[in-house]
This record gives sequence, C-alpha cells and structure tokens, in this order.
Amino acid sequence: MSKELIFGHQNPDTDAIVAAKAFSYLQNKLGYDTEAVALGEPNAETEYVLAHFDEPAPRVIKTAGNEVESVMLVDHNEPQQSVSDLSDLTVTHVIDHHRIANFNTAQPLWYTARPVGCTSTIITQLFDQNNIEIPAKLAGLMLSAIISDTLLLKSPTTTPEDETVVKELAKIAGVDYESYGLDMLKAGTDLDSKSDLE
Amino acid sequence: MSKELIFGHQNPDTDAIVAAKAFSYLQNKLGYDTEAVALGEPNAETEYVLAHFDEPAPRVIKTAGNEVESVMLVDHNEPQQSVSDLSDLTVTHVIDHHRIANFNTAQPLWYTARPVGCTSTIITQLFDQNNIEIPAKLAGLMLSAIISDTLLLKSPTTTPEDETVVKELAKIAGVDYESYGLDMLKAGTDLDSKSDLE
Ligand SMILES: [Mn+2]
Ligand SMILES: [Mn+2]
Ligand SMILES: [Mn+2]
Ligand SMILES: [Mn+2]
Repeated sequence: MSKELIFGHQNPDTDAIVAAKAFSYLQNKLGYDTEAVALGEPNAETEYVLAHFDEPAPRVIKTAGNEVESVMLVDHNEPQQSVSDLSDLTVTHVIDHHRIANFNTAQPLWYTARPVGCTSTIITQLFDQNNIEIPAKLAGLMLSAIISDTLLLKSPTTTPEDETVVKELAKIAGVDYESYGLDMLKAGTDLDSKSDLE
Repeated sequence: MSKELIFGHQNPDTDAIVAAKAFSYLQNKLGYDTEAVALGEPNAETEYVLAHFDEPAPRVIKTAGNEVESVMLVDHNEPQQSVSDLSDLTVTHVIDHHRIANFNTAQPLWYTARPVGCTSTIITQLFDQNNIEIPAKLAGLMLSAIISDTLLLKSPTTTPEDETVVKELAKIAGVDYESYGLDMLKAGTDLDSKSDLE
C-alpha cells in the first residue's frame, strides 16, 4: 500500500491538527502507511496545546500531488477548504462532523461522518471499536480538540457522546479537563489576555 | 423523535430492499422510529428471496414529504437515484458502498460508507459493533443481498469483509450459501431459465 497524507482544513484549528495526528496513528496501527500534515501553521490555542503535551507541529504542505496519489481528509470535506490540488488526488478516507457539500468521488471510499461536536470524538470511538490503546499524549491532544470545538462542552453542537469521550480521554491523559480546558481556551484568546495584563 | 422512512434506490435490487429492512430493524433497536419502504416493486430475484424467507415486500412510495420530514438512505446517495422530493427532506443517515456524487446537506449527519461489495455487509458489522443480535430471517435476507451484489463473492468488488460476513450470516440463517446462492441468482434470470425450459 503506498503512502497517504492525512490533513484537516485550511486555517487549521486544534481539531484539524490533532485529528490528523490521531487518525494517522490509528490508520498506521491498522496497516496503512500515512503521515499527518497540515494546510497551515497552528494558531495560538493549538500552539499552547502542542507545547503542553510536548508534541511537534505537523509539517505544512501547500499541495499533496507532488508527494502522494491518495489522501485522507479529517475535520472537513468541502474541496474549497482542502488542499489546492485535491481534484488531482484520490480521497480514500474521510472522517468528519460537518455537513457534506460539493464533495464528489469517482470511486467508493471509506467515509465516516457523525453529527457530534468534534472529529476527535469520532476518532476516539474508532480506537475503542478497534480495541487499540490510546497513548496518554494522544488522549491529551484529542481531549484538547474536543474542548476547543465544544468550548468545554458548552457549545450547542455538544452531544452526550462528546461528554463521554472527554471523560474517557481525561482519565487516560491524567488531566483535570475543566481547569486545563479553561487555561487552554484562554491561551487561544491570548491577544485579549495580554491586553488585560498590560 | 419523529418517524423517519428508510429506503434504497429507484429500480431496487435485493440490497436496496433488504438493507432498508435491516437498517430499520437496527435503528429501531437503537431507539429510532423508522419504517423501511421501497421506491419500486421487487425484481424477480428479490421476489424469490422474500418468498424463500417468508418476508413481505416493502410498501412502495413515490414521495416521502407527505409522510415525514426526515429520511435515511441505504445503498445510494445520489439524489437522482432517490425519492423525487428528496430536496424537501432532511437526510439524517446514509449507509452505502457507492461513490459519493451530488450529495449535499445543510446540516451535519450520520454517514457511513465503506468500499465493500454490499450495503448489507456494512449493516451486519454495525449489528456486531452494537452487540445487537441478528434474527435468523434477517440474516438470510442480508446474506441474499451480499450474494446478489457480489455474484456469490465472485465480482471484482468483493472484499475479504464480504466473505467474512457471508459466512457469519449463513451460520445464523442456517443456510448452505453456495447452493442457495446459485438457486437465487438463477431465479433472478428466470426469463432465461423459462426460455431454456420451453
Ligand atoms: Mn475544524
Ligand atoms: Mn472539528
Ligand atoms: Mn443496489
Ligand atoms: Mn448494494
């Protein structure tokens, strides 16, 4: 099986960065050869998350066709949010929690969408279904993505599944998700925080 | 939760009819209120299958908006293969093994596509994931759908997952799938068979 790149949407948020890393880890365990990349630099919140869990930022790509023939999309499906040369590539897998729009394929593919608060919630469920252990660091990263997308389980898109998964991941990561979550969300608004301090 | 209709594509084949029945059974077990219907009468092969397992043909509908607001699609996603008033309805679930084409939603939804030989293969895996027992009759019906779509596991679209599921379902149904499968496929070509006999 030839190598595939996995990435989230342009102007990546924490879920776009983390879901790519988590899905790549899972797919490699299942026998695929994948690398998680990103379509842009991490934002302030994601930088805080990566630093907190001592995880490097993913490599940023502008096009994928110069490296691979096939790709996997996380946290998006709309081509205008994706890599610029998507139409030259085969999408083999999509994992997402958004509406489906303008996404067309020539061949059957693996597509999992769930109407939940975060892609990382769905990926956690896939780890569990496949009985694959989630490393503590990855649990912390996915926990951060869910806190980000659901605003600490308070956004209207939050579902009972997100709540269950947050508790599961917090336990694995050994994190008090409420205090960590507040610090993390505050780091994402660090311009405001700095203004307050100055 | 208000009632939803579940149906396969126009000019239904055995998978379109059976997957609707199987997904409806599963979703009702999971707490939804659904009814399996069809967008056309069963073909000769499907009639043989339904008679063999003493299962009634589904009710045929031409439009869904006169009955429900939301629907679930099985074995298709392309609007031109679906109910004529699809654009007036909310699609909440799709389970399919075809390419995705011209399928757009306004809201997030539950979508499961797998690149396997038959929708009924994916539905069987969902029963197993949810630890829901498959009744013997339903196992026989889903077995028939997989035999139909994969031409008794010989079509180029057949995957190892279809083979595994066929053996699982044959055991539950108590059916010798190879001899039953040949009879069933022959029933689907009954015009030819009749010509041979006459
Ligand atoms: Mn996102
Ligand atoms: Mn997201
Ligand atoms: Mn079909
Ligand atoms: Mn089919």
